[in-house]
Amino acid sequence: MNILTLIEKKKRGEALSEGEIAFFVRGVTDGTLPDYQIAAFLMAVVWRGMDLDETTVLTREMMLSGDTLDLSRFGRLSVDKHSTGGVGDKTTLIVAPLAAACGAVVAKMSGRGLGFTGGTVDKLESIPGYHSTLSPEAFMRQSGEVGVCVVGQSKDLAPADKHLYALRDVTGTVDSIPLIASSILSKKLAAGAVNIDLDVKFGNGAFMKTKESARELATTMIEVGRRLGRTVHAVLSDMNAPLGHAVGNAVEVWEAAETLRGAGDPDLTELCLTLTAELVAPALEISREEARARAEEALRSGKGFEKMKAWVRAQGGDPRALEDPALLPAARIQKDVLSPEEGYVWEMEAEKVGLASAALGAGRREKDDSIDPAAGILLRKKPGDRVERGEVLATLLTCDPEKLAAGEALFLSALSFGETAPAGRALIEEIL
Amino acid sequence: MNILTLIEKKKRGEALSEGEIAFFVRGVTDGTLPDYQIAAFLMAVVWRGMDLDETTVLTREMMLSGDTLDLSRFGRLSVDKHSTGGVGDKTTLIVAPLAAACGAVVAKMSGRGLGFTGGTVDKLESIPGYHSTLSPEAFMRQSGEVGVCVVGQSKDLAPADKHLYALRDVTGTVDSIPLIASSILSKKLAAGAVNIDLDVKFGNGAFMKTKESARELATTMIEVGRRLGRTVHAVLSDMNAPLGHAVGNAVEVWEAAETLRGAGDPDLTELCLTLTAELVAPALEISREEARARAEEALRSGKGFEKMKAWVRAQGGDPRALEDPALLPAARIQKDVLSPEEGYVWEMEAEKVGLASAALGAGRREKDDSIDPAAGILLRKKPGDRVERGEVLATLLTCDPEKLAAGEALFLSALSFGETAPAGRALIEEIL
Repeated sequence: MNILTLIEKKKRGEALSEGEIAFFVRGVTDGTLPDYQIAAFLMAVVWRGMDLDETTVLTREMMLSGDTLDLSRFGRLSVDKHSTGGVGDKTTLIVAPLAAACGAVVAKMSGRGLGFTGGTVDKLESIPGYHSTLSPEAFMRQSGEVGVCVVGQSKDLAPADKHLYALRDVTGTVDSIPLIASSILSKKLAAGAVNIDLDVKFGNGAFMKTKESARELATTMIEVGRRLGRTVHAVLSDMNAPLGHAVGNAVEVWEAAETLRGAGDPDLTELCLTLTAELVAPALEISREEARARAEEALRSGKGFEKMKAWVRAQGGDPRALEDPALLPAARIQKDVLSPEEGYVWEMEAEKVGLASAALGAGRREKDDSIDPAAGILLRKKPGDRVERGEVLATLLTCDPEKLAAGEALFLSALSFGETAPAGRALIEEIL
Repeated sequence: MNILTLIEKKKRGEALSEGEIAFFVRGVTDGTLPDYQIAAFLMAVVWRGMDLDETTVLTREMMLSGDTLDLSRFGRLSVDKHSTGGVGDKTTLIVAPLAAACGAVVAKMSGRGLGFTGGTVDKLESIPGYHSTLSPEAFMRQSGEVGVCVVGQSKDLAPADKHLYALRDVTGTVDSIPLIASSILSKKLAAGAVNIDLDVKFGNGAFMKTKESARELATTMIEVGRRLGRTVHAVLSDMNAPLGHAVGNAVEVWEAAETLRGAGDPDLTELCLTLTAELVAPALEISREEARARAEEALRSGKGFEKMKAWVRAQGGDPRALEDPALLPAARIQKDVLSPEEGYVWEMEAEKVGLASAALGAGRREKDDSIDPAAGILLRKKPGDRVERGEVLATLLTCDPEKLAAGEALFLSALSFGETAPAGRALIEEIL
């Protein structure tokens, strides 16, 4: 077999066979295919697409390109969630303990972020003492005993995806449904959970800019996951504005804790309850309605919050930090952004708020950059809120005064104002 | 400027600006762009194409990426021809002296071949003593004095094309009209002639498989050449069967000499007269009819053949070899291929005849392979000829007995026979 034949075949719009796709993934994994041929192949896939059979094989082969986690000891109870990425997205910190409080097992590997803020692991590491590296035995033990364990992603999970992702990033071949679907799912499937919930975001702060493309990605992943023996659900949610009121690392941990104490943003709370119910229903083999009721009960009763504390404690973190913000990293500099206009906040573009947060120190540009756990933005107003001129719109948080000007300029560029209130937007577009 | 922006733009189907294309070619030439990004860009061009403006800028920038030849001392008289490649294509060896005999100047750099047989320079080097490396001064002097000079291509002509061509070859990005047109034309334009004639072949032995694609390539190159200040004509010719009766190196030199002595294959002679007239008309600023008449006179009078001898002599070759085949390299082994059938030769697929010739030693696979100047095939029958079973179809020539079996098998695979004569095929499809 020859990679050139595969490139030509895909270029003509033909479907590739199982053997051909396996050959490609093997060559990517073992380094025998040169990057220029991989890049040409990827662009041909962006051009011609892949059908569901091809996408399924690609996902499976990428999943099998490295280690896979065996969670079979938890039977049908293992659950995992994945968000396609957004600004202010702390849902894992809320959904994981809620689902565990309902009886599911969240044995989760999570990434560090490249982008607006850190990833889930970075956020968790802003809790004093929390450590995200555990031995495989400790990971399994905690998952079984506490019901939640979240560690940094093993290096050997879907190495083919690691190589392809890095190459796609620099060759303009990111925006392809089969490539995105196989990238996300190969890692999720290798991480072993039987039930997977995908929070597929759309809007200017999300990778998928439109509802339609988000729906297409979601339905592809649901079907590919099904063919590979997993139960996959998806929630399409709006990422035109940031999720909740905190954007950063420590501030998102705090918002998650508040949400679990019942004092969270209603939209964020609703999204987390929905995601939890979608995970718990197949895991416990109960109806969606029953699962939703149990998720609400876990929240209302405080069992979800207790589970979060137990989880943090099990991983060495100080659970008191979830009740006393003084125990979380604090930003030396806190600066209020005042409204330049009076009227209604119309738009608060998530992408630009994310860039502002990164400029303040909350994100990474390169893999080895360090992040400032205290940096970020607290949103005092959200789209639809009325503001007076000079009223506080947000508080910028950073430890580096030199980062303030860029952060403020970027934050203000995210905003637009109107004389009347904008039409309300549903956060959750669809549950698939 | 950023290559990723260019890739994304082309991927969306947008036209690139002059500055963007210049940036790309500069990055290819100076090695600052990694091959994987170039490959992704090339595939996006195969996908989305380039308009005439873009193709013109790409061609110009590639032309300017290295040395250019200044033939201005010859005024409008400089002519050059290019063939898109075929099997048995010795037209340069005939057209160059005919055009020079008419008063044009053929100061030509020609490539060595990779493929079925050698390139024009390889063929010429089968003449004892011929040397294809001259100093720039000697090149200009001979061009002025004799009217023909053909040397090996300078290493520094359009280096961007050299890199792109090598990469296209291994990334499935060869078949794109703008990429082919800019590749051919950038080198021809850098080589300096004012009047350029393109012999664009179509058929199974040619790069363009259909008339339509050959016509599109030809019209693109004519228009791009015109915009860059040159007069470009094109002849579309059939390359389903080999051109003439000789395929190889020394045997093609011999067939060229015979053609110039008026004893050539009628189709080959007609194609050469047409190409000559298309070059001579703009060079001498005379009508096509007048140019055709002069080309015929140069052939009939023997002035073309005299010019070939003068040219070969000027480059150190023995002109007696053009009249005495015993002075050309002879194949130690000559084997007749007998017809397995009786009837009419229907097809003689040029591509397979070319592969047979290469198998006998007449071509190169790798750049540093040596070729056997005596190897090749003499065709005793051509499509449309009637044969009896056991009659000689062709004579295989080689110096290596181990190459005979593969050569014969490939040659026979090129043939098909019928009970009636096939419809006649015009060699020249169109003059553009």
